[in-house]
Order: sequence, then structure tokens, then C-alpha cells
Amino acid sequence: MTTTYVIGHQGPDTDAIISALAYARLKAHDDDESIVAARAGELNPETEFVLDRWEVETPHLLADAAGEQLILVDHNEHSQTVEGAREATITEIVDHHRLGDVTTSQPIFCLIKPVGSTATIIADLFAEREVELDSQTAGLLLSGLVSDTVILRSPTTTERDRVVAERLAEIAEVDIEAYGKELLAQKSKLGEKSPREMVLGDFKEFEFGDSSVGIGQIETVEPAPVLEQRDAIRTAMAEIVDERGYDVLVLLVTDLLEEASTAFVVGEQREMVGSALDAEITDGEAFLPGVMSRKKQVVPPLESAFR
Amino acid sequence: MTTTYVIGHQGPDTDAIISALAYARLKAHDDDESIVAARAGELNPETEFVLDRWEVETPHLLADAAGEQLILVDHNEHSQTVEGAREATITEIVDHHRLGDVTTSQPIFCLIKPVGSTATIIADLFAEREVELDSQTAGLLLSGLVSDTVILRSPTTTERDRVVAERLAEIAEVDIEAYGKELLAQKSKLGEKSPREMVLGDFKEFEFGDSSVGIGQIETVEPAPVLEQRDAIRTAMAEIVDERGYDVLVLLVTDLLEEASTAFVVGEQREMVGSALDAEITDGEAFLPGVMSRKKQVVPPLESAFR
Repeated sequence: MTTTYVIGHQGPDTDAIISALAYARLKAHDDDESIVAARAGELNPETEFVLDRWEVETPHLLADAAGEQLILVDHNEHSQTVEGAREATITEIVDHHRLGDVTTSQPIFCLIKPVGSTATIIADLFAEREVELDSQTAGLLLSGLVSDTVILRSPTTTERDRVVAERLAEIAEVDIEAYGKELLAQKSKLGEKSPREMVLGDFKEFEFGDSSVGIGQIETVEPAPVLEQRDAIRTAMAEIVDERGYDVLVLLVTDLLEEASTAFVVGEQREMVGSALDAEITDGEAFLPGVMSRKKQVVPPLESAFR
Repeated sequence: MTTTYVIGHQGPDTDAIISALAYARLKAHDDDESIVAARAGELNPETEFVLDRWEVETPHLLADAAGEQLILVDHNEHSQTVEGAREATITEIVDHHRLGDVTTSQPIFCLIKPVGSTATIIADLFAEREVELDSQTAGLLLSGLVSDTVILRSPTTTERDRVVAERLAEIAEVDIEAYGKELLAQKSKLGEKSPREMVLGDFKEFEFGDSSVGIGQIETVEPAPVLEQRDAIRTAMAEIVDERGYDVLVLLVTDLLEEASTAFVVGEQREMVGSALDAEITDGEAFLPGVMSRKKQVVPPLESAFR
């Protein structure tokens, strides 16, 4: 029997990990196939907390997907897929990001919705396929939802996310706000992370036209300790630009309570970032009031500017 | 108010046209936006018959989509989109083909399912969004479904198509088999078509690796009159290869009753087609028993071979 791996993006966040877990459970219910939840990288502290809280085992680390069957969750572009995905067979996609460059030779099930989390979509698929949600799976899905939407505060949040969150919270028997704050506190735990780990902790690569762009994000309720390390972080960013040949590297330090981000910008094309985001970059740094979402507020203007 | 055009692929077939019409109706029900059903080319005789039968006006011919908002139905690759689509904003996709190369900068609603017709998916969306299907819309959707699945006989047909077809036939008050045969008879009406029109009547372009490949299909219950014109058809194919720079051009003449196709193959890369389809090409012609679906039985092996 062929194994199919359900897997999120590299540098997995909570939504990527729990989407793999929950969708694998849904598929296992539907089919006879062998379905395995997998991950494309190390867990962040928030996700570790979530798996611990709901007593779920860490998904299988898939080091090389070449030759395998994959269901992609929470991403659909090759710059973010697990190693070897170009030589894998993609059999399904469930995502809430822009339509990326993954293509297939056969028709597959592909569902992308402009909502706050992939968890939201998967929760609705359980209902649509009439599979009952147990409290553990609901807890996992709620974790992805509140993590990606910053407890329903991010501008990516839709009415659907609110409705689904209520339903999941009821099944999981938790209070959205209280549980969400526990998660956010974990997200802010930078602990003994090196500057390099801070840049690459939640990191995505994009090809915009001929330009290669990296965008990292640190979401925190307490940005000061990060901002104080700006020199060391910028040095780490310059090293990463050299190693990976990025035209520009942006790190968003997002203050979840103030609903604003500070952007560090390193690389030859940094002028372009300032004009794209309509922000003044001074000493490679810009303050972006209201900016919380990489996907909705940073990727689209950068893509337009580089095209 | 911005107008959004719902539009199918170039060289539209019945499923492309009725999907645009039906999805525009569904969207108009959901939203306040201005939604207009459109088409990217001339109607074929079968589609003309369908619109006449259900007393529906021909959708708007969109000559250039640059700067417009588009919902793509029944396709999702740029080689098949209306002129100017690269400079348009794609706001949704509903399709049943392989995942193609269309990308977006924002997250959008994109639903692709491996079923026999786009009509099948749209019929389910009416149910999911709790919008009642009137008998006219059900008749249109049934037409797309039976046309694309050759009255549920094509290997692309799924259990879902059968269930949906039953429901649509009930609402539209027609007999699937009898109505389907009326449609097939139209499909077979080649009338006074020139050889060039026969090749390009139901035609799709693909980029497989670095190769540009055109694949036309004539579906008929009476292939003899077409096959007898093989010399004139091959001449027309050679002209098209020259004009458009194809590496290879395939024309499938599909016998709907015998469930087999004859393929005419013209162009420099014709050897590749023979090995991809595991068929012997003699004088640029191959017989393909059991082959009825371009999408499922011809595109995937060709794509693999050219990669």
C-alpha cells in the first residue's frame, strides 16, 4: 500500500503542523490508504506547547520527499515545499495562501480559500464530509486558527474564522481568548535563540519575477528584547543573504498587542522594499503601523513592485 | 462598481460556456458585485444547441481581459486563458483539470476537483451555499456534465458525477440518456467545417517542459467522414504547426460509440508521442483503443514524456 504524507511548509508554524495532523485524520477516516502526518522542519516553541497540551505525538520528519506521494497543506509553492517535492506526486492541496507555482499532470483535489488559517478550511471539511470532530482534533485546529489569526485580530481574519473558532472552542472545551493568550505567550518565548535562529524561525522564500526574496517574521507581545539585538540580527541577515543569494531579505518584528511591525531590510534591492511598502527605510529599518500579516500586507505589494 | 467576468477556456466547449453562465448566477446570488458570464471564443454547434434548448442568451464575448477582474472556470493555465488574462486580476478558479501555471498575488477561492465536469462542481456549490437550482440552470449544468463525460461513459466519470447528474436531470425534467444522445448528435455535426476548423474546434495548447504542444479532439459517433479527409486534415495541421511553432500537434478523432481514438500526429517531436502513448505511429497516424479522454489519457503521459 502506497503511503501518502500530509505535509506543511518548511519552517513549519502551528497551522502547518496541526493542518497535517488533522487532515491526515480526516483522510484516514475517508480512505483505506496509508496516510501519515509529516513535517518539513523543526517545531517552534508554540507548536511544541500545542502538541504537549493536546497530548499528540510530533509528526514524522520527512527529510526527502522525492518519489513519495504528498498532500500539501498550508502552502502551494515550490520555494516552500519539503526537499524533493518536485520529484514527488502531489495528490491534494488544502491551503489559504496565494495560488503558487505548484503544478500537477493529473487533476487533483485542490481547495484554497482566502481565510485566516488552513485549520479553518479543514474544520469545514470535517463538517462537509460528515466526520465528527473529537475534542483533541478540535483543540489542534483551534490552535492553528488562533495562532495564524493572532486570536482573530489579524487583518486576514474573516467571518468564517470567527464562526469556526466558536465551534471548535465549544468542542475542545476551552475559552478562545484565554487559550489564545497562552499560545501567544509561547510565540513570544524567544528564549536562548541565536539571531540567526530568530531570522529563520518563521521564514518564507519567494521568487518575484527574477528576484529572490526572503521574508522572516517574529511575532511577539514584547518586541523590545528583539529590537535591542538589531545589530546582531542584521549581521545574521547579511550572512543569510550572502549564503542564499537573496536580492533582498526582510525581517518583520511584529508587535501583536500594538498591531504594528518593525521591518529590518538587508540586501541590494532594499530600496524597492521601501517604495513597495510605502515606508521610509532609515538605516535599513522601517516602522509599519497596522502591518501584522506577511501574507496579506507584505507579500502582495512586494510581488507587484518586483514584477 | 467593478465588473467581474466569469470565463472558460479558449475554444470553449459546452462545459466551459455553461460553467460561466451557472457560476455567474450563483455568484450574483451571493454578492452585490456586478458579475457577467463571458466566453473566450465562438460557440460550437453542440453549445449553440444547448443555449437554444434552454432559452439562454449567448454569454458576452470578451476579446481582451487586460485590466479586468476574472473568475476562471473549466481551466487554470495561461496557454488556455482569454487574451490579456496575464494582465487581469484572477479572483477565483473553479475547475476539474490538472493544476496549471496560473498564480495570484493574493489568496483567492480556488476549487479544483478530479471529477468529470466543472458543471458537477458548480452544481455541488449551489447545494453547499444553499441556493436553489431552477430547472433552466439545472438543464445547463446537466448539458456540461453529459457533454464532458460523454453521457457518463468517459473514464473521467466519477461516482459524484452520476449522483449529480441524477439530481440535475430530475430538476430539469429530462432523461439523461435521451437528452445526452441529442447532445452527442450535435457534437458529431461537423457540417461544412473546413479541415482547419475541425482541428481547432476543440483545441488546447500546453507547455510541457520546453516543448509547445497542441492537442485537438473531434468527438463523434461517426468517425468515417473525418478519417476519409485525413490528407486535407494533415495539411491543415502542418500549417498550424508552422504558424504557431508547435513542437508537435496531435488531433484525436474519438469514436464515442467504439470508445477508441485515432490520433493524427504532425511535427518534429512526433516520435515522442508514439512512445508516450505506447502506440505505433504509421504514416503519422495511430489507433488508440480505449482512449476517450484527452485530459486523463493523453495529457499526463505526454507531459511525463516531454519532461
